[in-house]
Amino acid sequence: MIHYMITTTFLIAGVGGGVAALVFALFKTRWIYRQSPGSEDLQRISGYVSEGAMAFLSREYRVLIPFVIIVAAFLAVANTGSLRLQSIAFLLGALTSGLAGFIGMRVATASNSRTTHAATNGLNPALKVAFSGGTVMGMSVVGLVLLGASSILIAGSWLYGDDPDTIQYTILPILSGFSLGASSIALFSRVGGGIFTKAADVGADLVGKVEAGIPEDDPRNPATIADNVGDNVGDVAGMGADLFESFVGSLVGSMILALTVDAPVDMRLRLFAFPIILSAVGLLSSMIGVFFVRAREGISPQKALNAGTFGASLLAALLTILTAYLLVGGQSFAGAGMWHLVGSVLIGLVAGVSIGLLTEMFTGTDTYPVNQIVESCQTGAATTIITGVGMGMLSTVFPILIIGATILISFMLTGLFGIAIAALGMLITLGIQLAVDAYGPIADNAGGLAVMAGYPAGVRDITDELDSVGNTTAAIGKGFAIGSAALTAIILFTSFREQAGAGDINLMDVRVLVGILLGAVIPYLFSALAMNAIGKAAFLMIEEVRRQFKQKPGILTDTEKPDYGRCVDISTASALKQMLIPGIIAALTPVLVGFLGGIDMLVGVLVGVTASGVVLAIFMANSGGAWDNAKKMIEGGAGGGRGSEAHKASVVGDTVGDPFKDTAGPALNILIKLMAVVSLVIAPMLMAYWG
Amino acid sequence: MIHYMITTTFLIAGVGGGVAALVFALFKTRWIYRQSPGSEDLQRISGYVSEGAMAFLSREYRVLIPFVIIVAAFLAVANTGSLRLQSIAFLLGALTSGLAGFIGMRVATASNSRTTHAATNGLNPALKVAFSGGTVMGMSVVGLVLLGASSILIAGSWLYGDDPDTIQYTILPILSGFSLGASSIALFSRVGGGIFTKAADVGADLVGKVEAGIPEDDPRNPATIADNVGDNVGDVAGMGADLFESFVGSLVGSMILALTVDAPVDMRLRLFAFPIILSAVGLLSSMIGVFFVRAREGISPQKALNAGTFGASLLAALLTILTAYLLVGGQSFAGAGMWHLVGSVLIGLVAGVSIGLLTEMFTGTDTYPVNQIVESCQTGAATTIITGVGMGMLSTVFPILIIGATILISFMLTGLFGIAIAALGMLITLGIQLAVDAYGPIADNAGGLAVMAGYPAGVRDITDELDSVGNTTAAIGKGFAIGSAALTAIILFTSFREQAGAGDINLMDVRVLVGILLGAVIPYLFSALAMNAIGKAAFLMIEEVRRQFKQKPGILTDTEKPDYGRCVDISTASALKQMLIPGIIAALTPVLVGFLGGIDMLVGVLVGVTASGVVLAIFMANSGGAWDNAKKMIEGGAGGGRGSEAHKASVVGDTVGDPFKDTAGPALNILIKLMAVVSLVIAPMLMAYWG
Repeated sequence: MIHYMITTTFLIAGVGGGVAALVFALFKTRWIYRQSPGSEDLQRISGYVSEGAMAFLSREYRVLIPFVIIVAAFLAVANTGSLRLQSIAFLLGALTSGLAGFIGMRVATASNSRTTHAATNGLNPALKVAFSGGTVMGMSVVGLVLLGASSILIAGSWLYGDDPDTIQYTILPILSGFSLGASSIALFSRVGGGIFTKAADVGADLVGKVEAGIPEDDPRNPATIADNVGDNVGDVAGMGADLFESFVGSLVGSMILALTVDAPVDMRLRLFAFPIILSAVGLLSSMIGVFFVRAREGISPQKALNAGTFGASLLAALLTILTAYLLVGGQSFAGAGMWHLVGSVLIGLVAGVSIGLLTEMFTGTDTYPVNQIVESCQTGAATTIITGVGMGMLSTVFPILIIGATILISFMLTGLFGIAIAALGMLITLGIQLAVDAYGPIADNAGGLAVMAGYPAGVRDITDELDSVGNTTAAIGKGFAIGSAALTAIILFTSFREQAGAGDINLMDVRVLVGILLGAVIPYLFSALAMNAIGKAAFLMIEEVRRQFKQKPGILTDTEKPDYGRCVDISTASALKQMLIPGIIAALTPVLVGFLGGIDMLVGVLVGVTASGVVLAIFMANSGGAWDNAKKMIEGGAGGGRGSEAHKASVVGDTVGDPFKDTAGPALNILIKLMAVVSLVIAPMLMAYWG
Repeated sequence: MIHYMITTTFLIAGVGGGVAALVFALFKTRWIYRQSPGSEDLQRISGYVSEGAMAFLSREYRVLIPFVIIVAAFLAVANTGSLRLQSIAFLLGALTSGLAGFIGMRVATASNSRTTHAATNGLNPALKVAFSGGTVMGMSVVGLVLLGASSILIAGSWLYGDDPDTIQYTILPILSGFSLGASSIALFSRVGGGIFTKAADVGADLVGKVEAGIPEDDPRNPATIADNVGDNVGDVAGMGADLFESFVGSLVGSMILALTVDAPVDMRLRLFAFPIILSAVGLLSSMIGVFFVRAREGISPQKALNAGTFGASLLAALLTILTAYLLVGGQSFAGAGMWHLVGSVLIGLVAGVSIGLLTEMFTGTDTYPVNQIVESCQTGAATTIITGVGMGMLSTVFPILIIGATILISFMLTGLFGIAIAALGMLITLGIQLAVDAYGPIADNAGGLAVMAGYPAGVRDITDELDSVGNTTAAIGKGFAIGSAALTAIILFTSFREQAGAGDINLMDVRVLVGILLGAVIPYLFSALAMNAIGKAAFLMIEEVRRQFKQKPGILTDTEKPDYGRCVDISTASALKQMLIPGIIAALTPVLVGFLGGIDMLVGVLVGVTASGVVLAIFMANSGGAWDNAKKMIEGGAGGGRGSEAHKASVVGDTVGDPFKDTAGPALNILIKLMAVVSLVIAPMLMAYWG
């Protein structure tokens, strides 16, 4: 009976939901491709971006494949018995996450030019194309996670049965391999992508704007295509892979913790099924939410997008209540009932939105912190940096208070499982949330293409308006990504502790204390390496652009064509090379600490890396965001305006902020989750090793 | 018998050693005052600095006194029975630490001008005066700690007896009040001083150098005296109070942990006496080491100072073996013997020096990181900042590895007590270490005075040579201060756990986890407030200097005298006002968390604040130090030299680095110790409250 229920549930909610999302994405994709790709010039230039993005992906996957094969082989060899299937699940995780990135990038680059062209017909058509592009990304991510995870669960229960012990010690460890696969792609996309995008940006700006004196987004600049590709790589594929990882992680973590709830078998299995059903419910709400996004005359794009996300959230909340009623009803488990479960979901949902809004309050145009930075620009670059650092540091307090409160309250409601449910609740409307996130870079790229393809100024005005909304949603998305990374990491290492069979971890054990200290320093090492990598990659890019200008003097007079491909290639190769060392550090530290220092010390490291990493990530993301908007405010006329000394200072701030917010900060999201997932995957080996 | 032994030990080692150190300091002081104070101009200008320093101290103490009275009253009222004496111990701690700061500043400001004048006779006489000034500071700190702590211990055992339980639950809690007193002064001196010195610096530079175009250290600049006072306040009184706090903290912590060793009463009491004897032995070694510092022709000042510190360290190591032999001999305790004890001391000693040397390797002139920054200055201020941040982050890894190894090894040798002994071992030669630290600002001030009093250029060359050595010693001293703060904080919260009667602290308890997260964010909040405070204080200073230049136009033509006092006063008032909120946060957080969240959550907060705070402190101190030296290298002709674009970029780096390294970074040392000490002091109340 139970068996039947679970398989049915996973078939309907997981496989069914996943397929529905992919079909939805397919329809949206076909609609996008039916839109006009615009003028010939636009098609040609957009083709370069599209080709560049695919060049990045294909090279990334070429680097990835040997890596993935090595890890899969390791999992097949190091494990025994049924756990060897971890390697298959790992491959599936890498494949689905990679596929989601591929689809997202492909459609985003197809939507760019179509958004530009649609903007000739006004704001609303352009919004519709850009948002549809984002929707494909969002639906693909959620659909592939649901499909992949439930396939593994169904296959696992079909192979090994479904009593709770089998699920906990055989099937869920296999599923954690899926999570590791997703994390590997996230590492390459988010960290490699983060290095790529900034190297391209710096190279394009420094040689093109400063040395050659040509404007931004000028097609004569050989690095300009790489710069536009970078936006897609970093903000579409990178953000998607990051949240794919969070989603899988919270799903796996919450299923593991469901089985540890002190309740009868039947109830534990119901709770075990809850995360998948919840995800399906969230997906349904997101799909419906997409239809709420209708820009009409008199309604700003921001309001249209808000209608979608808030509508989806409200619907998801209502459906959560229904789900909890059907699953738990009047029964209780470990002192909690259906309303406690609903409470945990809602707290996560509210926390995610609150962290996003806080991010906006600390980095948005015309907010107190950004105004302070604008003022400090009057006294030069040094005060600009000091104020930005101070404001970024200050901004860390409130999200941490929210995360802390979320943990405490959700734990009080439903124990450790409650925290996991809150983490999942934060991501419940991920489908539409990601759609809104990915919309930003599409609108941004559309603007760049409009300039390069010589569209009239009115088109750029429209894409600029879409883009300015994109900046706000990007800020919210970033806060969201960090918040969910924190909660995901916490439930993953909590799950690790369960799966490794460790009991209480004594904080006063010196190995644990030293583990926390070591963990606290890793985010700094990781950030330092990531920022250092940008310098090296940018250096190669600068050399290349200079070389092209020198060897093909016709480029500047429009008589020769720059070699865009080489710039993309150089940035790609360098980014992927530079991310190897930080990647290896992140992946090997848990293995080394786990086998040399023990399980307790590893938990210490994970706690240290999470606590220190989350705070550092918020600091870097928010300082960077605030500097960015301070510069935009000054360029908009505040505090002296374009060309003033204050403007120069604000450019310094923005340049410092770029690697903070687009490379090091987001990379930390991956770091903390990846280290926890690696630990979770090796938990059975550690348990066997330490006895 | 035991009673007799302990009292005798404390009388001889503690009171005797303390008095000896103070007598030594007195002799040095009298010798300094016998040296010529130089020309009339020099005496007059040095008088301003001296008056300014005293003005700062007297105003600081006026703010402090009500604060101290309130805390003392709270301790007298909130405690019951014999623990009420905590308030007296607290007053004594505040008094002795304040006295040490007063003596240090008084003698340092007297040594400044005498060093300038001695420099007319050559390098060696100048070195001798400057180092003697530092020696007074070093000996006063160590002497007052020993005298104060042993007086309380003797009085306590005389009042209440000396069985281990009485010592642990009555006398040592009273002694922790002494530690809190020291921490309170450290908070005001280090944080308030850090704000003061940077506000004065920025004010002097911005209006004097930039707006009025007069050189640095020009007596026409009204803020120049405040700037020189700032060096004394920050680097002499601040550093002294910081290490006073570390020394008291490790002393108290190691005595508490001695009593928890699993050994017979007799042995526990011997171990309990060990820290005081060890301190006395280190003091003796430092005093002898002072005589090794003899600059002769052909020997650089650096070598002379090294002879002193390394000689003292070697001697201390030998005497430690003798002490351990006499105290423990062939007996064993909890599986350890005298050599394990010696090992713990030496590991601490080596760790302290290693962290110092690492600091030098990451911030010193012509090191790889600083050369990288110099190179990045070629491409502007933004890359200067990015590279400096990256290098600072990278530099955090190695000190943390050393601290981690120190904890693990010393724990393996002698358990928790071993960690405490390592912390004390790091500070064993504090007398001479502080002398070397305080020598730097004296040499720096002597140079400033030489310029202001119109001494020939040769004198400035000599003080510059002394000063350049001072920069290296300052870097080492900073690393040392952070390392000892980390270890002190760790043994203090370990002691807190013991004194609060808590058993194992389960890291997987959500309150503990949330505590760690909250703890991790506090250093960021504290740093943000400290850096923000500089901006506000500097603003008032800038206004005042502008006002003086405007209302007294004769200042610039040397026909009117600037009002130095007002500048000192403004910077002082503002610094003390601005440090209130961070101070209150640091002091009240443990109280709130302890009473609202519980003892376990408080331990979590302390662990989080220590792990996150230490890493952040190293990052900020080293980034700042590296930017400083990159600027000096460029001013010395590297990478374009003075006046180049690279020089401008390096000035931005240095200006950003100043609050990093002189305010926020060092303030974090205080934060982590203060929060642990506050917890330790309220431990009996928490134990009573939570039952």
